[in-house]
Amino acid sequence: MANLLRLNDLSDLEIYGILDQANHFLKLSPDEWQQAPASELVANLFYEPSTRTRFSFETAEKRLGYQVLNFSSQTSSAKKGETLYDTVKTMEAIGCRAVVIRHPQEGYYRELLNANGIAVLNAGDGAGDHPTQGLLDLLTLQQEFLILEGLTVAIIGDLRYSRVARTDAEVLTRLGAHVLLSGPDEWKNEALPGDRVSVDEAIERADAVIMLRIQHERHESAMAMTKEEYHQRYGLTRERAARMKPESIIMHPGPINRGVEMDSDLVECERSRYFKQIRNGVAVRMASLQWTLQDGRKPQII
Amino acid sequence: MANLLRLNDLSDLEIYGILDQANHFLKLSPDEWQQAPASELVANLFYEPSTRTRFSFETAEKRLGYQVLNFSSQTSSAKKGETLYDTVKTMEAIGCRAVVIRHPQEGYYRELLNANGIAVLNAGDGAGDHPTQGLLDLLTLQQEFLILEGLTVAIIGDLRYSRVARTDAEVLTRLGAHVLLSGPDEWKNEALPGDRVSVDEAIERADAVIMLRIQHERHESAMAMTKEEYHQRYGLTRERAARMKPESIIMHPGPINRGVEMDSDLVECERSRYFKQIRNGVAVRMASLQWTLQDGRKPQII
Amino acid sequence: MANLLRLNDLSDLEIYGILDQANHFLKLSPDEWQQAPASELVANLFYEPSTRTRFSFETAEKRLGYQVLNFSSQTSSAKKGETLYDTVKTMEAIGCRAVVIRHPQEGYYRELLNANGIAVLNAGDGAGDHPTQGLLDLLTLQQEFLILEGLTVAIIGDLRYSRVARTDAEVLTRLGAHVLLSGPDEWKNEALPGDRVSVDEAIERADAVIMLRIQHERHESAMAMTKEEYHQRYGLTRERAARMKPESIIMHPGPINRGVEMDSDLVECERSRYFKQIRNGVAVRMASLQWTLQDGRKPQII
Repeated sequence: MANLLRLNDLSDLEIYGILDQANHFLKLSPDEWQQAPASELVANLFYEPSTRTRFSFETAEKRLGYQVLNFSSQTSSAKKGETLYDTVKTMEAIGCRAVVIRHPQEGYYRELLNANGIAVLNAGDGAGDHPTQGLLDLLTLQQEFLILEGLTVAIIGDLRYSRVARTDAEVLTRLGAHVLLSGPDEWKNEALPGDRVSVDEAIERADAVIMLRIQHERHESAMAMTKEEYHQRYGLTRERAARMKPESIIMHPGPINRGVEMDSDLVECERSRYFKQIRNGVAVRMASLQWTLQDGRKPQII
Repeated sequence: MANLLRLNDLSDLEIYGILDQANHFLKLSPDEWQQAPASELVANLFYEPSTRTRFSFETAEKRLGYQVLNFSSQTSSAKKGETLYDTVKTMEAIGCRAVVIRHPQEGYYRELLNANGIAVLNAGDGAGDHPTQGLLDLLTLQQEFLILEGLTVAIIGDLRYSRVARTDAEVLTRLGAHVLLSGPDEWKNEALPGDRVSVDEAIERADAVIMLRIQHERHESAMAMTKEEYHQRYGLTRERAARMKPESIIMHPGPINRGVEMDSDLVECERSRYFKQIRNGVAVRMASLQWTLQDGRKPQII
Repeated sequence: MANLLRLNDLSDLEIYGILDQANHFLKLSPDEWQQAPASELVANLFYEPSTRTRFSFETAEKRLGYQVLNFSSQTSSAKKGETLYDTVKTMEAIGCRAVVIRHPQEGYYRELLNANGIAVLNAGDGAGDHPTQGLLDLLTLQQEFLILEGLTVAIIGDLRYSRVARTDAEVLTRLGAHVLLSGPDEWKNEALPGDRVSVDEAIERADAVIMLRIQHERHESAMAMTKEEYHQRYGLTRERAARMKPESIIMHPGPINRGVEMDSDLVECERSRYFKQIRNGVAVRMASLQWTLQDGRKPQII
């Protein structure tokens, strides 16, 4: 058993292994998916609202044959003051083999150091990490370009509060891709690896452009410009898209604010891999879950 | 694949086909229900609170063998500003074959014009339509009277804001039944087909009396009378029920405000088909889901 | 079919029968759990927030092979004014064989007197009863001490608002255990059977110490002392734990307010059965559900 907390905790070999397994799942017929005994349980503990990630994990779990317990913080006894550690140990005592957790607090999982009887999959920790999003972005890039090394990937927008930006920038750099970072000055993030360039340069040079969602819910004050201004200054307008390299693609972690980060017409344009990313997400989460629950694996030190 | 958005979009033949299939499901033993491969997914997206309709659809889906994803707007990322179109396309990308949607906005489904890879079943759009409620009402009437043509059906109460009133009045009129409409003047609805009569006349003439729930949540201001006054003036009192025709029946789409729309003693009286309607609802939703997902069917133009 | 509403409604024989069956489930392998046909439905209706009890019931239901419908009052049409009776009858009409209900109103189940076609399992009614918590506490004590008769069990803390206190004190007394009660004067409860003693005496004399959770949500005013004061005066401090009898054990119904009812270090100490109680809870709920749904059983008079 292992945890999947930060993508950077995994070796290159482990990352490529998960991607291979995800590609394998994409080729299997539905009848071949179910691999877990029907009595095995997995719990999804979401302390922040989510549709896509929760449904994606739930689908992955059900396709592998797991029974699923869903918890959203609004209807739970989280209000009763229980620690996250006790909640996770309770899930283990109830019989869960794994918990998938999304939590607003960066690094929440450090509290789970001694919960060794159950696998923990991080579905997003505040502005920290989002490892399965990173994996599905890698899978999408790999399907398109085969080799990640040497690719130029632009990550544009809310660099400060986006866990996707952090996870992607770190793992892409490590795997040999060249990362370009761009976005409003007030949202820049010195901690991310990559070259700071203008939005126009980033879009024109990149093989893949990842437009980040504005994390309205994490900003303490309202954005200093209108949505239209943001779109014109930092968004993927149709004009900018027209200047992309011939084979380059558009990605977005979702959900999209149409007309803000990206022109609405681009969401389903030929370059866009938006819905393909979502499809890949299910396969990556199946592979991730299977990876954490492999026999003989030691619990990872947090 | 087809959508089920407004009952009036279906031909008479299609409506009777769904009713036949629902009756067929009611005769099958539970072991014979499961018809879908266990890996198929259906999502329920409820943007308004609901117990009965959501559970009814969920039961129908599970009995047919589908895996079910449940979404309620309170715990989702609907707050993150994603369009309904993008949410539905996301469900499709995740692997869902159908989505069941309840939404406060009348005609919300017009936004889904191009979401052709997934079947959409309307579980209620604002004060618009509620096609499966219409179908279960037809099924209940058909079980009782065999032939809908020539039946007299009274629809009484909140005609303005009830999607049940609209769906039922339209489909019953089309299928040859005679519709009587009654209720408070301030809630009248000129758009509905049917004869306007007094509450007493409606109840005395009808073969079936459908008492509508007061849609408190859709009224902008509080009701101008007390619940007791409403009951005496427009409700199904015991006195009025005593003047019903010998074989006539009582129906209500639920949930009931006991003592308001209907005397509490009448809910389970011999004439009442209230809980039978709920039972029929599951069968009708099984048949509806099966109908939308039939092979070879073309997506319906919205 | 039977209801499980108050533990005191069951005969000693019935209680020991459920405990035996729960122990039996704990010995079975997962493949042997599933006993219900996959088309059978059970609904969980939770009108109060809950993680552990809802998940515990849901796990028990799924392990027995039931399909599960989950309802939480925040996202349901409970707001639409439907009576609990009508909701339960609706669940029956939809096809559920049993409903598990948690509700803030003590004795809510008296309203369900005539809902005879569906089994009702009480998962907690206000400050009333919590029969499956009582059963899992009995199971935990029985596993430890084999015989309940003659055991000394201390129940300490919020005696007034704890349904666990009431259920445990009554059933333990009836089965021949000796109950010691202790806690703040303002939370004393004359209705409970047992000897009133000081916290120190209770802890020093008991074979098992049950520390109650402070029911913040049921108290009308804030506690008159700080959490630290409560811990020092009424909590299980490390000092008090050191004076426990050699073989005595620590229990808590959860969720724990660490450092208040119990020192944080004691939660997983050798004496603690906290997570074992949770494990036992799933087995007890499997046995309880099976007990209520046994053929040939008559509905219980409420």
